[in-house]
This record gives sequence, C-alpha cells and structure tokens, in this order.
Amino acid sequence: MDFNEKFTEYSGYFNKVLTEFCDNLTCKPQILAESMRYSLLLGGKRLRPVLMLAVGDLLGVDRDKLKNFALALELIHTYSLVHDDLPEMDNDDFRRGKPSNHKVFGTGNAVLAGDGLLNTAYSVLIKECRNGAEYVSASEFICDYAGVYGMIGGQSADLLHEGDGNYSEETLNFIYENKTAKLLTAAVVVPDIIGGGKHFSQLKTFGSDLGYLFQLTDDILDVEGSFASLGKSTGKDEKAGKYTAVSLYGLEACKLRADVCAERCRTIVEGINGDGEFLINFVNYVRNRKN
Amino acid sequence: MDFNEKFTEYSGYFNKVLTEFCDNLTCKPQILAESMRYSLLLGGKRLRPVLMLAVGDLLGVDRDKLKNFALALELIHTYSLVHDDLPEMDNDDFRRGKPSNHKVFGTGNAVLAGDGLLNTAYSVLIKECRNGAEYVSASEFICDYAGVYGMIGGQSADLLHEGDGNYSEETLNFIYENKTAKLLTAAVVVPDIIGGGKHFSQLKTFGSDLGYLFQLTDDILDVEGSFASLGKSTGKDEKAGKYTAVSLYGLEACKLRADVCAERCRTIVEGINGDGEFLINFVNYVRNRKN
Repeated sequence: MDFNEKFTEYSGYFNKVLTEFCDNLTCKPQILAESMRYSLLLGGKRLRPVLMLAVGDLLGVDRDKLKNFALALELIHTYSLVHDDLPEMDNDDFRRGKPSNHKVFGTGNAVLAGDGLLNTAYSVLIKECRNGAEYVSASEFICDYAGVYGMIGGQSADLLHEGDGNYSEETLNFIYENKTAKLLTAAVVVPDIIGGGKHFSQLKTFGSDLGYLFQLTDDILDVEGSFASLGKSTGKDEKAGKYTAVSLYGLEACKLRADVCAERCRTIVEGINGDGEFLINFVNYVRNRKN
Repeated sequence: MDFNEKFTEYSGYFNKVLTEFCDNLTCKPQILAESMRYSLLLGGKRLRPVLMLAVGDLLGVDRDKLKNFALALELIHTYSLVHDDLPEMDNDDFRRGKPSNHKVFGTGNAVLAGDGLLNTAYSVLIKECRNGAEYVSASEFICDYAGVYGMIGGQSADLLHEGDGNYSEETLNFIYENKTAKLLTAAVVVPDIIGGGKHFSQLKTFGSDLGYLFQLTDDILDVEGSFASLGKSTGKDEKAGKYTAVSLYGLEACKLRADVCAERCRTIVEGINGDGEFLINFVNYVRNRKN
C-alpha cells in the first residue's frame, strides 16, 4: 500500500468511528446535535487520528484500544476550531471551504457546540478510565495537553499578541508549541502510553517537532497558498498583524527551518524499532502539503 | 451550630480548597489564569459544594473524598456562567454585582476562560479516576449531567426559545431540569456514589426537585427582587421575552408550586437515616431566598 492508500485506510477507519458517534448523538434540542455534527463532519484530514493509529501500528498497539482516544482528540480539535473561528477570536467565516459553525448556527450556538464537543470528549475519556491505569494516564495526558497548560494557553497567547506588532521569538514558539504541537503530541504519545511507555520522550519530541513543522508550513501556505486549495482565507495573518514565522524569519528561512524540522522528525522515527515508513512519509507530506 | 453558621463552615472549607486551587493556577499567559480566577473568586454562595458536603455528612462520607468533586463542579458551574453571560448568549454585563468576565477581559478571553475552566474541571476529575471504580462513576455522572444530555442541552434550549413567545410547559421543564437541576443533582448524588449508592434514586429526585425549586424562586426573584440584593439585573426575563414559570403560571401559582416542591424535598431528606436538619434548612433557605 502506498502512502495515500494507507492514509485513506486510516482516515476511513476513523471516519467510521466518527460517523457511528455522530449517528448516536441524540441530544436535544436538535440544533445542538446538528451544530456539533456539522463541524465534526465538515471534512478535515483527520491528521490526529491518522497519526495516532499509525504510531499504534509502529508500536504494535491494536487500533481498537486507540479508537476512543482518537475520537476524543478529534472532538477536542473540532471544538477548538469552532471557538477559534468565533468573531471575537480569529473571526474566520470559512473553515474547510464551508461556512464556519457560527456563520451557520449563530455565535451563541457555536459557543455551545464547542462546549458540547469538549464535554463529550471527556465523557469518552472518563469511560476509558475504567480500562485500567494506563488508560487513565492516556486520558490525563490528552487533558493536560488540551488544557490551560497546553492548547488553551496557546490560544490565549495567540489572542493576546494578535496585532501587537511585537514579534518575539519566545512568544512565537510558545504559541506554536501550545496551540498547535500539543494536540499532535497527544496523538503520538497516547499509543505509547497504552503500549507500555517505551518511547515516551522520543515521541514527545517527535510531536513537538511535527507541530512546529505543521505551523511553519501553515505560515508558508498562508503566503503562498490559495483559497481554492486551502478552503480558508489566505493572507489573513499579515492583514491581521499576526505573529508568524514568515514575518519573523522571512519566507526562505522558514522553508529551511521546515526542512531541518522534518529531518529531525524522520530521524526519531528511524530510531524506533518497527515499520516507520508511513510516519516518515507523513512527515514529508506535512512538509510538502498544499492544504 | 445554626444553619447560617453551618453554611459558613461548609462554604469556608470549600473556599479554602478553591483558593488553594487558584493559587496553584500558574498557566500562561497571565490573562488566562487571571480571567479564570476572576470568575471563580467573584463570590457566589458555593451552593453546589455546600450541598455536596452536607449530603456527605448526612451519609457519613468524608469531605476529603468529596473536595475535588466539589471543586470540579464549581469549575463547571463557573464556566457555564462565563459563557452564559456572553453578548450572544444571555448578554449580561453583571454577575454577582460585578462586571461579568467578558466586560473585564473581552469576549475572546471570556470564551477561553470558560474553556479553560471546563477543561480544568476534567483534569481534576480524571485524576480522581485513579482512586477506584466509584470515583470513575462519580466523575462520569458529573460529566453526563454537565454535558449535552444535561446542562449544555438546557442552555441550548434556553437560547433556542429565547424571545419566541411560545411558552410550552414541556420546554420550560426541559430547560429547568437540564440547565439548572442537573448540576445540583450531581452535587447531591456524588456523595452517594462515593458512599456506596444506597440512596441513588432518592437523591436524584431530590436534586431534580431542588433544581426546579431553585429555578422557580429565581423567576420569582426576577420579578420581585432588586439589583442591590441580587447583584444582577432584574426584570430581564420579561424584557427578553424569556420562558419563565412566572409568565407561564403567574406569580402566585409559582409560589404555590415552590411550596409543594420544597415539601417534596424535605420529605426525601426525612426518609434518609441520619441528621438531615441542615439539608431541610437548606431547602427552606432556597424557598425563601432574597438573592
């Protein structure tokens, strides 16, 4: 199976899990379930679930043990996008080429859809806690990395420094590490926690590097990409006066940094015993992505 | 100890737990920790923690076993107020006589403060899951009752029907049960789950009735109360065309309903072996509250 086929196999497996979850979402009023489903099924590449399943395969951890963690992570990722797109946050009217949640359901409902997605993620994770101590640890890891010492901290810093023109490298790194890298790190570390924790620090570094790479390529794409391929507005960062790696280092230096980062990621995967081909290709895919 | 002294003892104990939590909140950027602390320490009667500790005493469950559940519940309650006060939700500029979170920190930060409070509640609850199966069950109960089949569902219905003038009793009951009663029910059921679950269905009914009572008296106070004693705007419900029990049944019928509801609550407490005096006085306090 080549990379694209394997990617489709992983995301297809996950999409079944997600669709089943959405089918069973019977909460009332209807608009609540509908708005949650809308953002969950808006498409998206399912990067975090795919990553989690792929690391599971590398380490020999069965995907049945991981599917609910992947689901919870995607719920958390989706809630963060719904809240991030809100008018008083990033104010983005489009997500994945379609109107963002608050454009369809209104701001109030979008706030609640996000709250609902976040709360439901923890409903999934707390149920997993019945399966043993390593499941509690994995849930705890996701919660910490999604929370105020993780992703939410990154979003808060992002909002705080939006448009202030003070491009400090330290702040940039804080935002990228927390807002972007932490959830990706959770995706790759959870299979290791469930599998016995033999590669914890390697995979933590891998997640952090991959997150930085992802953010670097995001910044590059905001300059070079098009609305058609991204499904969201481009050139927004510059207009909004946002911190980006491109404004700090310049476009070419960013590409070099991305190359170095990708190489570090590949080296970590090569250092783990097992079939790392898909993950290496995943790194290359993130480096070269057009959307 | 009379009711007020005992109430102060319970809330004082909880406030120490909460203050310690706030002191240890070191997340960055500062505005994130600050905005979370602002709403947590805005005052508030700590009804849910007090209730939980009191039911714990009735059932002989040590407060050390309950304090983190009480903390998580107060975090959840507080996040719900922060998001509920947002301009596109209830749009309330005041909470407990002080500017609401978004008036002080801005809407974007208030969204994130709420997200942070919610996520941190689950950080507390997942840690509790290490203590055994009944702790997982208690965490699950809180999560379910706070979530899309509970409080969030109630908030969504509240938002949906705001100002539509269609006062159906069924919708009103759905909103009151979910938006208000579910978290109060979680407060009284958790000690029972930790203590062996002997009074589960009685306490569930107690929570539901107490929540309805609380909501009835809230509606009565919105008509009869003053800004000075409530610390929030009054007469808002009518202006906003909101569903309330007063508009559905009329003021006097509401008071009668509240009396019946309070009587049902007292009867349940009397049916449980132990010293229920404080809880009976608690019911009377809710019935007769001026704020």
